[in-house]
Amino acid sequence: MVDSIELDPKIWPDTADRNSRGEITIGGLSVTSLVEEYGSPLFIFDEAHIRERARQYLSAYNTADVPTDIYYAGKAFLSTTVAKWLVEEGLRIDVCTGGELEVALRAGVKPESILFHGNNKSVPELEKAVEVGVGRIVVDSLVEISRLSQIAAVKGVTQQVLVRVTLGVEAHTHEAISTAHEDQKFGLSIASGAALDAIELVLSQPSLSLLGLHSHIGSQIFDASGFEIAAHRIVELADTVRKKFDFTVTELNVGGGMGIAYIPEDDPIQVGHMAKAIHEIISTECARVHFPLPKLAVEPGRAIVGGAAITVYEIGTVKPVLVTDELVRHYISVDGGMSDNIRTALYDAQYTVALASRQTAALAVTSRVVGKHCESGDIVVRDTLLPADLAPGDLLAVAGTGAYCRPMSSNYNFLPRPAVVSVKDGKSQVLLRRETMDDLLALDPGIK
Amino acid sequence: MVDSIELDPKIWPDTADRNSRGEITIGGLSVTSLVEEYGSPLFIFDEAHIRERARQYLSAYNTADVPTDIYYAGKAFLSTTVAKWLVEEGLRIDVCTGGELEVALRAGVKPESILFHGNNKSVPELEKAVEVGVGRIVVDSLVEISRLSQIAAVKGVTQQVLVRVTLGVEAHTHEAISTAHEDQKFGLSIASGAALDAIELVLSQPSLSLLGLHSHIGSQIFDASGFEIAAHRIVELADTVRKKFDFTVTELNVGGGMGIAYIPEDDPIQVGHMAKAIHEIISTECARVHFPLPKLAVEPGRAIVGGAAITVYEIGTVKPVLVTDELVRHYISVDGGMSDNIRTALYDAQYTVALASRQTAALAVTSRVVGKHCESGDIVVRDTLLPADLAPGDLLAVAGTGAYCRPMSSNYNFLPRPAVVSVKDGKSQVLLRRETMDDLLALDPGIK
Repeated sequence: MVDSIELDPKIWPDTADRNSRGEITIGGLSVTSLVEEYGSPLFIFDEAHIRERARQYLSAYNTADVPTDIYYAGKAFLSTTVAKWLVEEGLRIDVCTGGELEVALRAGVKPESILFHGNNKSVPELEKAVEVGVGRIVVDSLVEISRLSQIAAVKGVTQQVLVRVTLGVEAHTHEAISTAHEDQKFGLSIASGAALDAIELVLSQPSLSLLGLHSHIGSQIFDASGFEIAAHRIVELADTVRKKFDFTVTELNVGGGMGIAYIPEDDPIQVGHMAKAIHEIISTECARVHFPLPKLAVEPGRAIVGGAAITVYEIGTVKPVLVTDELVRHYISVDGGMSDNIRTALYDAQYTVALASRQTAALAVTSRVVGKHCESGDIVVRDTLLPADLAPGDLLAVAGTGAYCRPMSSNYNFLPRPAVVSVKDGKSQVLLRRETMDDLLALDPGIK
Repeated sequence: MVDSIELDPKIWPDTADRNSRGEITIGGLSVTSLVEEYGSPLFIFDEAHIRERARQYLSAYNTADVPTDIYYAGKAFLSTTVAKWLVEEGLRIDVCTGGELEVALRAGVKPESILFHGNNKSVPELEKAVEVGVGRIVVDSLVEISRLSQIAAVKGVTQQVLVRVTLGVEAHTHEAISTAHEDQKFGLSIASGAALDAIELVLSQPSLSLLGLHSHIGSQIFDASGFEIAAHRIVELADTVRKKFDFTVTELNVGGGMGIAYIPEDDPIQVGHMAKAIHEIISTECARVHFPLPKLAVEPGRAIVGGAAITVYEIGTVKPVLVTDELVRHYISVDGGMSDNIRTALYDAQYTVALASRQTAALAVTSRVVGKHCESGDIVVRDTLLPADLAPGDLLAVAGTGAYCRPMSSNYNFLPRPAVVSVKDGKSQVLLRRETMDDLLALDPGIK
């Protein structure tokens, strides 16, 4: 049968189901009714899924012997409502610009539970962060340390900081790559000595208080292997700092990057297993050099919201294209595209897609879901099987669009961005309203 | 010396220069003064450059024997002011969504000089286009032909259309690839018979009037070679239509895709040479089958505005990173990034960048210009040489950002999008005003 009928629980939101008419439902509401109410395309978040992932992280990481702070990486998707849910569940929030900080503050997130990232925070951003009392600022360069120190001194406060270090470890989906150096914009290299210089500089500033070290080894991490070398190197650095400066860091933040399943072949490690592995690795490394076990922190973003949302599109045209003399590909054009999901074009990201508005007994055929933009690379799902009887007016649902889709969305071709709604127990609410042409035209002073 | 001091006229806007303080000027105004007035980052368009390119296209293509319509491809960059300039110069406008159509209409562009593209125009978009009297709609699928025919019939008008055909020719920068079939969302294939079916369907609809055929062979085209096979196939199709349906098409639109120079190595053909080559190719093909020479049309977008703009950024941090034991790379972090220019990450696009706010005698060193987003792929210019003495507060200018940068821009990490201004003869004006945090927060109903 058509494999797009079954909703793989690994990929779809926790409450995703099909009703008797074959419509996909989230939180008890059919996508058909949601599109009727809010229009298409539409991002639909499953509130229960988000809250459940937050709880899983908290319980998996917070064992008696290793207290761990869970920071939600707001860059994955941020709105005041989502921030409130996560704080209610006990998470903290990680932001990386003044804009994200503003949203978190407007959501009522306590400043002391906010962590501020970024390779190039502006002076006004740092001033604001210090002023409101952001709990942790992750410093990323020598110039930033001086800048922040001065800002804190002027304001008469002591700012808690972490130093972001690069370990020379890159964790890819199924492999960890380890080198001495890292050719990237973030962090201060252990191997080059920059990390130690930065730590020394922080320790010399009376207006800065060094809490600990921060590292981040990659994205879509599916297993714990990369953390072994990472933990070895970062604990070794902490030990060097203790010996050299007689200062003991009390916090290690190992960053984010925990992966989710976009397609059936994706097999990310369970959060409980990952937590256990990371705790063991850190404990072992600390024991090796008799380093007092620090507080840990992790920063899941995609792992919390990525699988929680789907994007629903309405089909506009179906075009069978003869690709070779043997192969016909159905090009299914939808009413959105690379403006609401750039990840397929940007990262060759793969997605799972299904007919969402009815049932069908039609055979599955080679299909490609494309957008309505004037660009041949405007592809939503490159290779998939979809029912042969898809027709204009049918709704398609793309799973796993909760992270990095709406945040990276554009108005390419003057397409207003879709609404984002959430559903729980048969009730829906707007997280971000749909843009209108008036919103877009408001920036053009030539519009009368 | 530092090659970033010289402004290669092939790459930079026509009026770009350096004043006695070493500041880059456009239209007589220094980028320093423009950033003081409008903030950073800032897109700066050279009005004279845009008008000059429009005039070049008109004079190159409009010879006595081959009248040619020049459609500006609005997707490259559209604002009411730019649309007005181009119409003043004699260009027509090509749009591909209801949003772009709206901007063109608000700019006062005459509907009959607008051409409407798109693989998935919605019913409301088609209705609006027919209603306002858009001159040409390029139909892209059988279902769209039926849809448009019905809309026009209901409104009691005859809508002029072109049929978009796929030729099996892909023009890349320096090569033309030719196959029988094309695996893409646009158009109707000649080889599969879909093009002829579509033409027959159009001819059978009393509410549609077939003007001609449309093809588009690629992007960043640097020479005319791809047009030879293209013209051969499209004129052959026109001849088949004449013989089979006793109908002679009177218009051939060969699309856009004319390239520009982003870096010194780029060597696009001059517009005059390209026009001459296309005219000769089409004339030869028509003569071969005794086909009456049709009106031609081309659709430059990037070629008009791409080189007309620069993006100015302020440097926030400079970080020397030890890449290997022999190589240090300067990571120059600026106050924008992949939100205002996704092309580097999306297409591995290359750009030319220069220190814009002062002169320097410093040596050039291996550098990478990166943005402030929380993503290691947030790169503006991957490999470049820049003065070793760059420091926070310096301004950098990236050339060739007039096309597909602001239109594809996002609010990733809640970064408001930069202002877009234009300069001419020492005077500046706003094309699109800078976004504010309030603009972004306005979509979140949780903001009080």
